[in-house]
Amino acid sequence: MKNLKLAALGADKKRTVVQVGNVKIGEDFVVMAGPCGVESEEQMINTAIGVKEAGAHIIRGGAFKPRTSPYAFQGLGLKGLKILAKASEITGLPVITEVVDPRDVSWVCEYVDILQIGARNMQNFTLLREVGKSNKPVLLKRGMYSTLAEWLNCAEYILAEGNPDVILCERGIRTFETYTRNTLDLSIIPAVKECTHLPIIVDPSHGTGKKSLIEQMSIASVAAGADGLEIEVHCDPSSAKSDSDQQLTIDEFKPLMAKLNKTAEFMKSVM
Amino acid sequence: MKNLKLAALGADKKRTVVQVGNVKIGEDFVVMAGPCGVESEEQMINTAIGVKEAGAHIIRGGAFKPRTSPYAFQGLGLKGLKILAKASEITGLPVITEVVDPRDVSWVCEYVDILQIGARNMQNFTLLREVGKSNKPVLLKRGMYSTLAEWLNCAEYILAEGNPDVILCERGIRTFETYTRNTLDLSIIPAVKECTHLPIIVDPSHGTGKKSLIEQMSIASVAAGADGLEIEVHCDPSSAKSDSDQQLTIDEFKPLMAKLNKTAEFMKSVM
Amino acid sequence: MKNLKLAALGADKKRTVVQVGNVKIGEDFVVMAGPCGVESEEQMINTAIGVKEAGAHIIRGGAFKPRTSPYAFQGLGLKGLKILAKASEITGLPVITEVVDPRDVSWVCEYVDILQIGARNMQNFTLLREVGKSNKPVLLKRGMYSTLAEWLNCAEYILAEGNPDVILCERGIRTFETYTRNTLDLSIIPAVKECTHLPIIVDPSHGTGKKSLIEQMSIASVAAGADGLEIEVHCDPSSAKSDSDQQLTIDEFKPLMAKLNKTAEFMKSVM
Amino acid sequence: MKNLKLAALGADKKRTVVQVGNVKIGEDFVVMAGPCGVESEEQMINTAIGVKEAGAHIIRGGAFKPRTSPYAFQGLGLKGLKILAKASEITGLPVITEVVDPRDVSWVCEYVDILQIGARNMQNFTLLREVGKSNKPVLLKRGMYSTLAEWLNCAEYILAEGNPDVILCERGIRTFETYTRNTLDLSIIPAVKECTHLPIIVDPSHGTGKKSLIEQMSIASVAAGADGLEIEVHCDPSSAKSDSDQQLTIDEFKPLMAKLNKTAEFMKSVM
Repeated sequence: MKNLKLAALGADKKRTVVQVGNVKIGEDFVVMAGPCGVESEEQMINTAIGVKEAGAHIIRGGAFKPRTSPYAFQGLGLKGLKILAKASEITGLPVITEVVDPRDVSWVCEYVDILQIGARNMQNFTLLREVGKSNKPVLLKRGMYSTLAEWLNCAEYILAEGNPDVILCERGIRTFETYTRNTLDLSIIPAVKECTHLPIIVDPSHGTGKKSLIEQMSIASVAAGADGLEIEVHCDPSSAKSDSDQQLTIDEFKPLMAKLNKTAEFMKSVM
Repeated sequence: MKNLKLAALGADKKRTVVQVGNVKIGEDFVVMAGPCGVESEEQMINTAIGVKEAGAHIIRGGAFKPRTSPYAFQGLGLKGLKILAKASEITGLPVITEVVDPRDVSWVCEYVDILQIGARNMQNFTLLREVGKSNKPVLLKRGMYSTLAEWLNCAEYILAEGNPDVILCERGIRTFETYTRNTLDLSIIPAVKECTHLPIIVDPSHGTGKKSLIEQMSIASVAAGADGLEIEVHCDPSSAKSDSDQQLTIDEFKPLMAKLNKTAEFMKSVM
Repeated sequence: MKNLKLAALGADKKRTVVQVGNVKIGEDFVVMAGPCGVESEEQMINTAIGVKEAGAHIIRGGAFKPRTSPYAFQGLGLKGLKILAKASEITGLPVITEVVDPRDVSWVCEYVDILQIGARNMQNFTLLREVGKSNKPVLLKRGMYSTLAEWLNCAEYILAEGNPDVILCERGIRTFETYTRNTLDLSIIPAVKECTHLPIIVDPSHGTGKKSLIEQMSIASVAAGADGLEIEVHCDPSSAKSDSDQQLTIDEFKPLMAKLNKTAEFMKSVM
Repeated sequence: MKNLKLAALGADKKRTVVQVGNVKIGEDFVVMAGPCGVESEEQMINTAIGVKEAGAHIIRGGAFKPRTSPYAFQGLGLKGLKILAKASEITGLPVITEVVDPRDVSWVCEYVDILQIGARNMQNFTLLREVGKSNKPVLLKRGMYSTLAEWLNCAEYILAEGNPDVILCERGIRTFETYTRNTLDLSIIPAVKECTHLPIIVDPSHGTGKKSLIEQMSIASVAAGADGLEIEVHCDPSSAKSDSDQQLTIDEFKPLMAKLNKTAEFMKSVM
């Protein structure tokens, strides 16, 4: 793939493993779970405990929410980060959160274990360079309009700043189909595997935008070769300030985790 | 879904099973395999025997090829149908072929077991009505620009003529991504399952257009809940008159069949 | 452009002019107007007289309507064609109608002056070949998912059968934008002009699907170099059996014609 | 349109006019012209003088270039801004430049008259808020994947910070068509006019990515109701460090300006 230096898969086919705490992304099967946004300490801690008990490996939660309208809930900011850090302490699990402003990167790093770049910021090169200078792993979501080549070049921006720990995340692309919120492009998984050594996970929550499709698409993602999943889970989705249609309850998440673990096990045996 | 009468999933959640010979599409896991086009008796018979030995359930082969250019190979027509019938006789397997002209439907039915409507003809309502009047099962491919609602309405056209045996086939939609020939939309599988009682299979060959992605996407299709697959296999892809980049050899198809059977078995156990 | 023989623009840059009655498409500025569907003699004749008085050059009206749902109004068929012929006789203007079935082509030719191939049938190669064998000019709409290369290859199918009179028609492509019904791609006009000698007109009615946008996009089409327009006009749009949101009244069409004539005049002077 | 407060067109239909120096965007027909990137003082000054003589009203030039690859030319930064300021001084025309980092906004404002937000940063809400706090007009490009509703909500982000001077710019959306670099969506112009009071201009250079299509699409943009154009012009495109295929020479730009002025004049008379 043109222009790629650091992101390109080498002749030795060696793959990157990103270690966060005890979790080895790219080697173990990894599930990141938690609410779309951190809304309160109670909501976040309850959800974190719930997803941990269900078997999730990493806790997610947004403190800075990029929203279509300036009048929608924009996240709790620093307060949200402190709650996330507490959730991490209580559960013993690493936490991931989205960062949207290059000026925030250094201090956000004090509260979380993985920095997430959202789809809308995939080509925010200023932000990419800044997280590239940090010492935290970066989860880079694919832009909803982004080709594989453009996406990998964005990973290259981060790698070129000296940060080797980039995790790719497919979260659905924008097409004409309106039944789903986005069109989850699972073929990008084997495509990524043949172009780059970086791990790739899938976000079926944004990828479909529909609760009823998440279980099946999560299993299909693992079967397509994904190294993990990022799934929105909320202790009470109906009260959520964003994405209420696509967040699972903890009770829905539990049996899904069991199926995902079996699928990951099966895939190891069959490939 | 608006306007659907016969195609809509009923309150009883009962699902259609399309029986062809001993094969029960919608109940058993089914693989249709064979070359893009019937090119010669030798090519077709050799491929048919090969895919049968590998475990395929139905033989595919195109006698009428809808090609972008009028100067490209257009298929062998009647001669191709006769070869297909012979392949069926030799292997004992049912055969499927694409029909493109409403005037051909009645006599094509004499040679094959399943009629295929290609993506470009999904909204060729004249042709849909004609196959709806036939007594053969119809495989209806999703148009490359087609929403779920439009696709199911096309199935409705066939059902409304009295033919209950419609099989849907996802074969990739057209997006901005150029790494793959099309973008295979696996989320349409659970979406189809919640809207209609008709079975759905996946064509990963056209869906990706890339040999290197077919195995993984075939397995992912089964994991997404597909009732089967249609895969292009050619006894000598490098000599193929069409789609040479996406046809598997018989040697490549064999281990894939083994993995697919295991995956289908696994999915039964996990869901 | 690859594979084009007859459709390709020659070194002499000579352009095709399609003559229908006194109208020279590709030389004069031409407007085709009329209802989406022929619904009754009264509706069709009233509309035909209205658009003639407003200055339209060709009457349009659908006798065979390709509809998403099998239960929607499908057109009056032969009865509609007879009404169209009568409208032509009364106004002295040529008529254009869509043909959808290869079996209909020969007898439809007895009633109308131009055959239209709709967007959904752009790659219905069987139908293309059949109209290619007729002695009537063919208006070939661009498929809503069709690249320029694919479109011109479809024109090539018609030309290759011996029919030199092909008129291209841009009618909007399918994108993610939902404000308009389709996205009218006016850049295809100069693109067409540099690739082929065939004339090109624009259908702003389907192209936008919104009455409020039609005037401005009609004028912009002429400014983009279109050889003409096809506009839906209905004597009473609110009662229309299809496309009621995008059909102009005769009173709305009249001032538009005046503006279009001025724009065509202006474009001649400025280019 | 949902959620819009400040950007929505009022009942009085009053439209915003953004004044920059003597130029009234939204009232006068306005052309912004200049190179893709500022590459050297000589290149920028020569181009600025050339486009001024041709009749352009505002000088454009990029000092910060958001590039797909981190290894491509990224712009001259501060040095480029100083050259731009000098070009403004010499020609007496206002200058516009893209800003990509929220930390740069305050000091970039010291060198230029209009801040540009590029397509990739349309939903970089951090950056939108920052330019919303500045006292410079902002040109907001439509994201290549952006619906009208999303775009106007981004304008709302800027307006909500207290900056009333937002200019919209259509620059092509991403579709399946590969003949052009993007698909220029001119129907967005009348659509914008019916939803918001903000002025809208068109960038046919990025919108088509093809020199041969720019003239016709520029004229069509004016005919579609655009308040102006942003056109890439370079004193020596073949030596350009970016976008060499789509930049006009000064000699190509001159006759285009003459045609555009006539078209703007004509449109005033006809509408």
